[in-house]
Amino acid sequence: MLGRTYDNQNCSAARALEIIGERWSLLIMRDAIFRGHTKFTEFQRQLGIAPNVLASRLESFVAAGLMRTRRYTEHGDLHEYVLTPKGLDLQPVIIALTRWGDRWAAPDGPPVIFRHNACGGHVDQRLSCADCGTSPPPADVRATPGPGLSKTARRETTAS
Amino acid sequence: MLGRTYDNQNCSAARALEIIGERWSLLIMRDAIFRGHTKFTEFQRQLGIAPNVLASRLESFVAAGLMRTRRYTEHGDLHEYVLTPKGLDLQPVIIALTRWGDRWAAPDGPPVIFRHNACGGHVDQRLSCADCGTSPPPADVRATPGPGLSKTARRETTAS
Repeated sequence: MLGRTYDNQNCSAARALEIIGERWSLLIMRDAIFRGHTKFTEFQRQLGIAPNVLASRLESFVAAGLMRTRRYTEHGDLHEYVLTPKGLDLQPVIIALTRWGDRWAAPDGPPVIFRHNACGGHVDQRLSCADCGTSPPPADVRATPGPGLSKTARRETTAS
Repeated sequence: MLGRTYDNQNCSAARALEIIGERWSLLIMRDAIFRGHTKFTEFQRQLGIAPNVLASRLESFVAAGLMRTRRYTEHGDLHEYVLTPKGLDLQPVIIALTRWGDRWAAPDGPPVIFRHNACGGHVDQRLSCADCGTSPPPADVRATPGPGLSKTARRETTAS
């Protein structure tokens, strides 16, 4: 994907970054998810990004299944870029990034607040333990080998 | 930061990406946070990354306050890179990325499972509404102007 892979990393974060780790990628997805942008001109106006870069990102998103194209005129071949469930599912990644930026790089306060449509409350993210139901602090969470880890990598992980 | 800014974006996600949006950055932070790596050679062995790139990333993390250096020998000037609270706080971003990759780019199942030290349960992330306490689905969350949004941007956001 995008010619920039992390081949030796058997890791879902690395696989995710191969798809959305290029410059501008997550900001384009942000505008699709939270501003409802679908048209090339909308993305370009918002981001001030070079048209060739934007075209390349959008094409890669379609190839990766994050967006699909849809004609929006009966005449001509103008099309827009519509989020797929896979693309919309990046919402938690963008919220996590935004909240970190709010805490550490927003001296004037959060530029954006995420709200729950149903009640208007502030929406944040938290870790949640499926077993005990608590929200563990970072230091109380560890990464352990999962079923998708190769046997070789599993030996290395266990040994390290 | 890193000479690659998103100057016209008054957005915490953009500010975050200026600090950790470069190639390899989040995988280095992943290894610091979840593998406990602190030494240059540990990062290099795990990632197979060019030494000059790794050195540049680590220096930028120190400059941005994500890590600090600490001498680990009494003799000589060997030092290691230790996470600061700001760096450790990237944990939710890495978990969000990983879980997205698990859902969409891990055909053999998750390579890594996050577990709660206290009870061994699986740890995941979820959105949480501070008012009603529910976990809203993506389509039920919207971005609204916050206190850090400039007046100009606020007018544009309201109008769009």
